Amino acid sequence: MSGLASMFSPRSIAVIGASRNPRKIGYELVSNILAGGYEGKLYPVNPEGAEVMGLKSYVSVKAIPGEVDLAVIAVPAVHVPEVLEECGQKGVRAALVISSGFREVGNLELEKRIAEIAKKYGIRMLGPNIFGLYYAPSKMNATFGLSRVFPGKIAFITQSGALGIAMMGWTNLYRIGVSAVVSMGNKADVEEADMLDYFSEDQHTKAVLMYIEGAKDGRRLLDSMSRTSLRKPVIVIKSGKTDAGASAASSHTGSLAGSDRVYDAAFKQSGALRASDLAQAFDWAKLMTMQPPPANDDCLIITNGGGVGVMAADACEESGIRIRPLPEDLQAGFKKLMPVFGNSKNPVDLTGQAYEESYAKSVDLALRDQRVGSVIVLYCQTAITDPVSIAKSIAETCESQGCEKTLVTSFVGGAQCNEAMQKLDELGIPSYPIPERAVSAVAAFYRWQRYKAKKGI
Amino acid sequence: MSGLASMFSPRSIAVIGASRNPRKIGYELVSNILAGGYEGKLYPVNPEGAEVMGLKSYVSVKAIPGEVDLAVIAVPAVHVPEVLEECGQKGVRAALVISSGFREVGNLELEKRIAEIAKKYGIRMLGPNIFGLYYAPSKMNATFGLSRVFPGKIAFITQSGALGIAMMGWTNLYRIGVSAVVSMGNKADVEEADMLDYFSEDQHTKAVLMYIEGAKDGRRLLDSMSRTSLRKPVIVIKSGKTDAGASAASSHTGSLAGSDRVYDAAFKQSGALRASDLAQAFDWAKLMTMQPPPANDDCLIITNGGGVGVMAADACEESGIRIRPLPEDLQAGFKKLMPVFGNSKNPVDLTGQAYEESYAKSVDLALRDQRVGSVIVLYCQTAITDPVSIAKSIAETCESQGCEKTLVTSFVGGAQCNEAMQKLDELGIPSYPIPERAVSAVAAFYRWQRYKAKKGI
Repeated sequence: MSGLASMFSPRSIAVIGASRNPRKIGYELVSNILAGGYEGKLYPVNPEGAEVMGLKSYVSVKAIPGEVDLAVIAVPAVHVPEVLEECGQKGVRAALVISSGFREVGNLELEKRIAEIAKKYGIRMLGPNIFGLYYAPSKMNATFGLSRVFPGKIAFITQSGALGIAMMGWTNLYRIGVSAVVSMGNKADVEEADMLDYFSEDQHTKAVLMYIEGAKDGRRLLDSMSRTSLRKPVIVIKSGKTDAGASAASSHTGSLAGSDRVYDAAFKQSGALRASDLAQAFDWAKLMTMQPPPANDDCLIITNGGGVGVMAADACEESGIRIRPLPEDLQAGFKKLMPVFGNSKNPVDLTGQAYEESYAKSVDLALRDQRVGSVIVLYCQTAITDPVSIAKSIAETCESQGCEKTLVTSFVGGAQCNEAMQKLDELGIPSYPIPERAVSAVAAFYRWQRYKAKKGI
Repeated sequence: MSGLASMFSPRSIAVIGASRNPRKIGYELVSNILAGGYEGKLYPVNPEGAEVMGLKSYVSVKAIPGEVDLAVIAVPAVHVPEVLEECGQKGVRAALVISSGFREVGNLELEKRIAEIAKKYGIRMLGPNIFGLYYAPSKMNATFGLSRVFPGKIAFITQSGALGIAMMGWTNLYRIGVSAVVSMGNKADVEEADMLDYFSEDQHTKAVLMYIEGAKDGRRLLDSMSRTSLRKPVIVIKSGKTDAGASAASSHTGSLAGSDRVYDAAFKQSGALRASDLAQAFDWAKLMTMQPPPANDDCLIITNGGGVGVMAADACEESGIRIRPLPEDLQAGFKKLMPVFGNSKNPVDLTGQAYEESYAKSVDLALRDQRVGSVIVLYCQTAITDPVSIAKSIAETCESQGCEKTLVTSFVGGAQCNEAMQKLDELGIPSYPIPERAVSAVAAFYRWQRYKAKKGI
C-alpha cells in the first residue's frame, strides 16, 4: 500500500499517547475510533502500557507485536521526533500528527525535524497540529472531533481545525453525508494537493470541498485542482479575501492570503467552484453528490406559487442558468395538469391548487422530455395541500423514472415544509428552504459542466 | 377610528361568507380568528344564517345587531359589490376582500366597481384577492393561512399571497416574531404606501419587511419609504429583477417590474434596505427588532476559532463594516482572558480553550467599552466546550449590562450549537448558523444608521 492508502485504509492503527483520562485528546481519539466502528486492529500506546477502554496497551510502538499501518500521534510536541523515529523503525507507513506546538507557535525548527524524519523513513505525515482524519469507507474516525459522522460522498479538507470539528457537527445536523474529513494543520509533509489527488481517484468521493486560507505551493495546488475538476467537482472556500480577513488569517494559520483577485482567477481557470461561505459550499456539494449533472442548458422551474417562481427565475438569470419559454407541445402537456389560471411557460405555475398528482405528473413530464436539462421544483406552503405527501410523490416519480438529469427542490414554509425537505433529502433529492439556494447549487453544477466542456470532456 | 385603525384594531368583525364546511375559506377564516384569541365581537354571516363553530350567524351584515368595524369578505367575486354596498349602509369602516376573480383574471370592470363602492362609503379596503390580515396586538388572525403565528415586532407586507402564507409558517418555525402579516392582493384601494405609513406610526412594529414585484404608484411608495425609514428600518425584497423574473412576475401579478437599476437606486435614496432573498430579509429584521442599532462605526469580533474569525472579518470588510485593531489598553484587557497563543487584535481569538468565563468576561469588556459600536460573537464547536452553557453566559452578561449596542452571535456546528442558538434567540440575542449571516444583518443595520445620519437624524 502507498503511504496515503495506509493513511485512509489502514489495517491497523496505533494511537500513541492514548489515555484513560476522558479530558485528554489521547482518550478522545481511541474513543472515537472505537465508536466509529473501525474494523482493523487498534493498539493504544502509552508509557505506562496501561489498558485503555478495554484494549491492551503497549509502552511503545515498537512493542506492538503486529504490523502498524497508521500511527496517530498525540504526545507533547517535544516527544514527537523520537516517536516518529520509532514509527519509522517499526515500518509504519503513515502518521497523523495531532500534537500542536510547532510552526503555529514559531517552533519552525521542531517542525523541520519531524518532516525530515518522516521523509527519511518514507512515512506520509498529515499535520502536525491537526484534529485528525475521518474516512467513511474505513469506518475510521481518527479525530478528536465529534464521534458521530453522517457517511456520504463529500470529502471535506480543512485548513482550520476548529472549523473542521464544527463542520463535522454541521454535516451531522443537516444529514449531509461525508466520505472524509481531513484536517490539514501545518502541512509539514502532506499538502492539499496530495489530498486532492487522492480524492480524485477515490471512488467513494463524488465531490471535494476545501476550506483554505492560503496555499504553500499555489502552482501545485492549482494543477491538482485542474486535474481533479475534470473528474469531480472541487468546491473551494478561500477566506482571507479582504485586508481585514487576510490580517486575521495571517495571525491564525500564518498564511499569506495573497491577492484575492489572483486566487479568484486561478480557481476559475482550474475549474474549482468558489463558494462564498460554508453553507453555500455544502449546499452545492449536497446536490453534486446526490444528483447527476444537468443533461443540457435548459432549466425548467415548476412551482405552485408565482412569487417563489419569480424569485427562482431571477436567481437563475443572475447566475447564468437558461430559463426559456417551453416549446408549445410541452406547454400543452403542462396545461392539462393545472387550472386555467395557471401558467405553462416557464416557470410552470401549477397554482396553489396543485396536489400530489399535479406535482408527480409535472415532474414526470419534465424528467421525460429530452429538451429539459435540469428541473427545479418549488413548493410554497398553502393552507390546503400537504407538503410531506407532495414531497413523497415527487421522490416516487423520480425513483420510477430513474432520474438522469439534475432535480432539486425548495419547499418554502414552516415545520411541515421542513419535514417534507428532510424526507426528500433522505430519498436522494436535495432540498433547500429558499429557492435561491436551490438555484445557486444548480448554477454551480452548470459551471462545472462548462469547465469540463471547455476541456473537451 | 380611522379606516386603517378599524382594519388593524377592530372592536368587531363580520366574516361574510362564513362556512361550516372545513374545506371552505369561509371556515378557515372564522377558525383562525377564534384560534388566534381575538377578543372583540365576531359575527359570521351566511345566507342560511346557520350557526358556525358555535357562533350565532346572520343572513346579512345588515342583520347584525351591533356595530361592525371590519368586514372580512369571502363570497364569490360576483357577489362582492352587493356585500360591500350592505357594508357601506351598515357603517362598516374597513374591509378585507379575500375573494379572487378580479383584475388578476382580467375582470377589471368588477374591480373598478368595488373600488367605487368602497370609496363612496369611505370604507378602507384591502384586496381583493388576498389571504387576509394578521395583527398581533389585536390577536387577530383574519387569514386563511396558518393558525399559529409567533408574535413579535416585524410587520410583513407581501404582494404574493402564497408567499405570505408560507412566510407565516417560516417565521413560526424559526420563531421570528411578527407584529403583522399583510396580504396586498390587487390593491384596488389600500396600497403598500398606506401600510407603510400605518406601520411607521405603529408602536408595536420595530421593522417593516416588504415583498414587492412592482409598484402601482412608485413615487408615493418611495415617499412613504423615505419617511418610514427615518423612524424604523424598511427591508425590501423586490423580485422580477431580471428578464426571466420580470416576465414571470408579469404573468403572476400583472406587475410591470420596471428597470431593476431604477428600483435599486430609488430604494437606496429612500433608505429602504434591499435584501437579496427572504431568508436574508428575515435575518436582518430579526436583528433589528431584537437589538439596538450600533453605537458607533467600530465593530469588534470575538471568536474561539481562527477560521470563523477570518470569515467574519472578510464579510465585514466586504459589506462596509469597520474592523480595526483594538487600542492597546483594550487588547491588554482581552489578553487576560485568553491563553498566550490567543489573539487580542480584532478579531479577538480566545482560542478553542475558551469556556463560559472567557466568553462572559470578553462580552462584558466589549459591551462596556465606548469605543466599540457593535459586537459579533462567534463560537465554533469544539470537543471540550459546551455551546449551550456558553450561550447562556453570553445572554446573562448582556442582560446584566443592559446592552446598549448591537450584539449578534453565530454558533457554527451541529445539534448542540443549534440548541445554543435557540436559547440565544429566546433570550433576545439574535443568532445565526454561519458568521456571514450575522455580519450581513449588522451591515444592514449600519446602512440604516448611515441613511438616518445623512438625513440629520
